Amino acid sequence: MMDVKNMHPEKFRKAVGKGSWTKPTAGVAPGYAQANLVILPKSAALDFMIFAQRNPKACPVIDVLEAGVTQAPSAKGSDIRRDIPRYRIYEKGKGHREVSSIEELWREDFVSFLLGCSFTFESELIKQGIPMKHIDLGKNVSMYQTNIPCKPAGRLSGDMVVSMRPIKSHQIAKAVEISARYPEVHGSPIHIGNPEAIGIKSLNHPDYGEAVPMEEDEIPVFWPCGVTPQSVLMNSGVDFFITHAPGHMFVTDIKNEELGR
Amino acid sequence: MMDVKNMHPEKFRKAVGKGSWTKPTAGVAPGYAQANLVILPKSAALDFMIFAQRNPKACPVIDVLEAGVTQAPSAKGSDIRRDIPRYRIYEKGKGHREVSSIEELWREDFVSFLLGCSFTFESELIKQGIPMKHIDLGKNVSMYQTNIPCKPAGRLSGDMVVSMRPIKSHQIAKAVEISARYPEVHGSPIHIGNPEAIGIKSLNHPDYGEAVPMEEDEIPVFWPCGVTPQSVLMNSGVDFFITHAPGHMFVTDIKNEELGR
Repeated sequence: MMDVKNMHPEKFRKAVGKGSWTKPTAGVAPGYAQANLVILPKSAALDFMIFAQRNPKACPVIDVLEAGVTQAPSAKGSDIRRDIPRYRIYEKGKGHREVSSIEELWREDFVSFLLGCSFTFESELIKQGIPMKHIDLGKNVSMYQTNIPCKPAGRLSGDMVVSMRPIKSHQIAKAVEISARYPEVHGSPIHIGNPEAIGIKSLNHPDYGEAVPMEEDEIPVFWPCGVTPQSVLMNSGVDFFITHAPGHMFVTDIKNEELGR
Repeated sequence: MMDVKNMHPEKFRKAVGKGSWTKPTAGVAPGYAQANLVILPKSAALDFMIFAQRNPKACPVIDVLEAGVTQAPSAKGSDIRRDIPRYRIYEKGKGHREVSSIEELWREDFVSFLLGCSFTFESELIKQGIPMKHIDLGKNVSMYQTNIPCKPAGRLSGDMVVSMRPIKSHQIAKAVEISARYPEVHGSPIHIGNPEAIGIKSLNHPDYGEAVPMEEDEIPVFWPCGVTPQSVLMNSGVDFFITHAPGHMFVTDIKNEELGR
């Protein structure tokens, strides 16, 4: 067993790169920011960056690797082609497949984007006494496709994906205040209560992740989610792109505090 | 005389577009954010956007117009080719020239970036009792080339340009707190006191703008400046780009408060 709770990100990435860790990264290297990955051919990268600029809550860019660059500025000695435990390759008309390395697929025109991930604000919420139910239940967070339109950019358009966390009424304001201090990891909620108003028919049937039961004294609180870019890129007919597989994140050298204000 | 103090941005832009206003824009449409302009051929735009992502204090992107687009999302009915009173055209090896419209130069591969401008935090500082000496003296702000390296991106690299405002010692902390609330218009200062430490030989000889005299009880306070991209683009050998002429800004429909937090 690897002691990932006490491992520096650089050492953990090396283990992933060698194939010694293939599981999700929740709980790994606590205190360090984990990131969503989107890799695009250069021909689609400018549109994506403009999309991210217009939709910063759903797509908070925390690091960019120029075309052909494999080491992330935010992660010493890293290799974006193998330091994530599981990748998703999307090809138009073929859906997606998962692989543990993209070294054989790598092209010099690939631009890589790292996006802030909710793990950062979740750890802060827990620290300040707001329980994260999906974590306590050992589940993946519930995610839903909404009807909230993102601002389009170039060829890219689509609706926002949100993550939902049940929060007790007396703690909602505090959860908003805390997450608002982390704009680079989705920031404050986009919607509180009333799932129908944003096109969610049933909380029991999330589009991604797992259902998390709600209690009477809880309200569903919705945050913009890093799955949005995957949904938008598919929706917009981009031929080919690569992301991390859900839950299998890139562990950066950035401390969570550095993303707060 | 046009009553620009009580004019909505849309009406002011129309006047500029028709050639009825050719002067600097300080004091125009108070309460609305003015922006720096950078127009680049698409071939250089991704590098510039990555540069801005890595250097957000010097290059805070508040709006982007995709290649060939002439209406800014942040400015209803606008035309980026003529709604700025004065443009600067930079050509490699030729320095720059100034024009009042770029309609005849326009190309479908031009991508336009609007960057937040210090006018927004200056108006907030004045409102809260911190005088802006250059404004009281009717001068342009003092700007200096420093030796603070920006983080490079692709082919772009260079040192930061800063603006300097003399602030009385007892008001410096307040000036930091207020400007920190406006990250999209350069945010908090990058350096306080000790000009030599950032490569400034003489405050009396600014590289851009005008000298502003310092009193005994004042300290020079330095903010990242929107002239940085012009300096970096020239330094990096980009063949061709267009900016606003200093002080002749693009007036957006964004209210200053919208850029605050």
